[in-house]
Amino acid sequence: MFTGLSAFPLTPVTTSGVDEKGFSHILSRLTEAQVDSMGILGSTGSYAYLTREQRKRIAILATQHAGEIPVMVCVGAVSTEAILHLSDDAQAAGANALLLPAVCYQPLRDEEVFALFETVTRHASVPVCIYDNPGTTHFTFTDELHGRLSSLEGVRSVKLPGVPDSPTAARERVEALRQHLRPDVTIGISGDAYAGLGLNAGCEVWYSVSGGLFPVMAKQITDAAAANDHERVTALTTRLEPLWALFRKHGGSIRVIAAAAGVLGLTDTDCLPRPLQPLSAGDIADIARVITTLELK
Amino acid sequence: MFTGLSAFPLTPVTTSGVDEKGFSHILSRLTEAQVDSMGILGSTGSYAYLTREQRKRIAILATQHAGEIPVMVCVGAVSTEAILHLSDDAQAAGANALLLPAVCYQPLRDEEVFALFETVTRHASVPVCIYDNPGTTHFTFTDELHGRLSSLEGVRSVKLPGVPDSPTAARERVEALRQHLRPDVTIGISGDAYAGLGLNAGCEVWYSVSGGLFPVMAKQITDAAAANDHERVTALTTRLEPLWALFRKHGGSIRVIAAAAGVLGLTDTDCLPRPLQPLSAGDIADIARVITTLELK
Repeated sequence: MFTGLSAFPLTPVTTSGVDEKGFSHILSRLTEAQVDSMGILGSTGSYAYLTREQRKRIAILATQHAGEIPVMVCVGAVSTEAILHLSDDAQAAGANALLLPAVCYQPLRDEEVFALFETVTRHASVPVCIYDNPGTTHFTFTDELHGRLSSLEGVRSVKLPGVPDSPTAARERVEALRQHLRPDVTIGISGDAYAGLGLNAGCEVWYSVSGGLFPVMAKQITDAAAANDHERVTALTTRLEPLWALFRKHGGSIRVIAAAAGVLGLTDTDCLPRPLQPLSAGDIADIARVITTLELK
Repeated sequence: MFTGLSAFPLTPVTTSGVDEKGFSHILSRLTEAQVDSMGILGSTGSYAYLTREQRKRIAILATQHAGEIPVMVCVGAVSTEAILHLSDDAQAAGANALLLPAVCYQPLRDEEVFALFETVTRHASVPVCIYDNPGTTHFTFTDELHGRLSSLEGVRSVKLPGVPDSPTAARERVEALRQHLRPDVTIGISGDAYAGLGLNAGCEVWYSVSGGLFPVMAKQITDAAAANDHERVTALTTRLEPLWALFRKHGGSIRVIAAAAGVLGLTDTDCLPRPLQPLSAGDIADIARVITTLELK
């Protein structure tokens, strides 16, 4: 399940709690587009803002909707004990894999992160994807640590936060990391603006936030990557530059994707968990224009 | 209550959960030394690693032990809704004040942090101290934002992460911040290595991790500051350099203070919430030597 398009849907949250109806609308787009897998609660899935009960409920809704599509559930938390409880909940909900970040409050050491992954992979009976995302977790993985982690039997994929900004450097980066990994551990690209570079550099999977809302667009890209059509991957991702520009302008993807879900009529335009706040009406209008111009779907 | 020594005790955590007996032993040192206030669950209090139930229990234990000593409880969390629940719990436990950080998962904007403090101060009936700690929360307060926050009626103090490294620059820093604050909002120093500089620069309170374990030592320093005896403050804090060196060496205070609590026989030497791990036997022996040499108590 750690290849192709892994679509990361938004979890819409209003003042009344999780918007289950909106979440279902988003999931329906993913099942219709037949994404290769779903990455639930990661990134714009907002795991860090939700209670254990809310996360359990979201995992259940996702596996119910997903049908034959494999579901990976983010079990990130600051404490190991919380992560183990969340892993139990995800597995009980029918998750096919766990996505595990190294969330820091106190800065973590490599040994501590290794022990965390060792504990979780021993505890869980489904495979684990390493969620490397220093921008939110403030832990930086080295290739050596990825290598050590990939020696754990349960670890099956690495979700990278991005690659260097040129095709050659991106390829070198992915190849250097691969030297450290067990052969059956895949490398996935995220940070959607890097998707084209990452896929052309040999990443086997796109862990995709924009693919969580616009799966048809994202699947065209991973299909082109699977066909080894580098030019088409580059063309399809380059034309999305106005979307990546919005992500950059608004400090990441979450506020843009939440607004976009509202523009599409899937959720309220204000569907972010507080303290996060929605963008202004003007910014939302810009987002609507980009969706129309790029014919995103 | 936002003056003098605010002692921040460690919350010891073992594989069986919170070590309530160890926590009580630590609190007894604070009541015996008659600290001016206690800051519960902040910093080495490990709020971010504990469940709502555990935090509620810790708040109750603290207020029961504290007697006449005012208790401030850290209500930090990623989501606003969680913070409001924690605030209710802290107040129900008898907390006299709340300590509120701006914990980021997604990076927060100034407007979002302002709205958070506005929501919490409206909701709570006890005063709030701003917990400015970018090293763990990854939010950086500007003086302008501190000023806007201090216009909220409930805000009564700012806990700074440190001051610049010279007496003149430290004084300029504290005076610059004070220009922005409502007159009855105090400024507190933390980052214990900055205590002497901060107190001599005009900070009215020391929010102190080392004072949470060695309150007699810390109270001598805040007493000297209250008497305006800058030389004694400098002398008393400078002699603690070997302790600050341990904090630097071990990436902050928490692993050192946890080991020190074990050395003093108050807790197990392994009393950190996972994924945090205890220091090595050799490092713990070094810590024991520093405690003895400096006659810390």
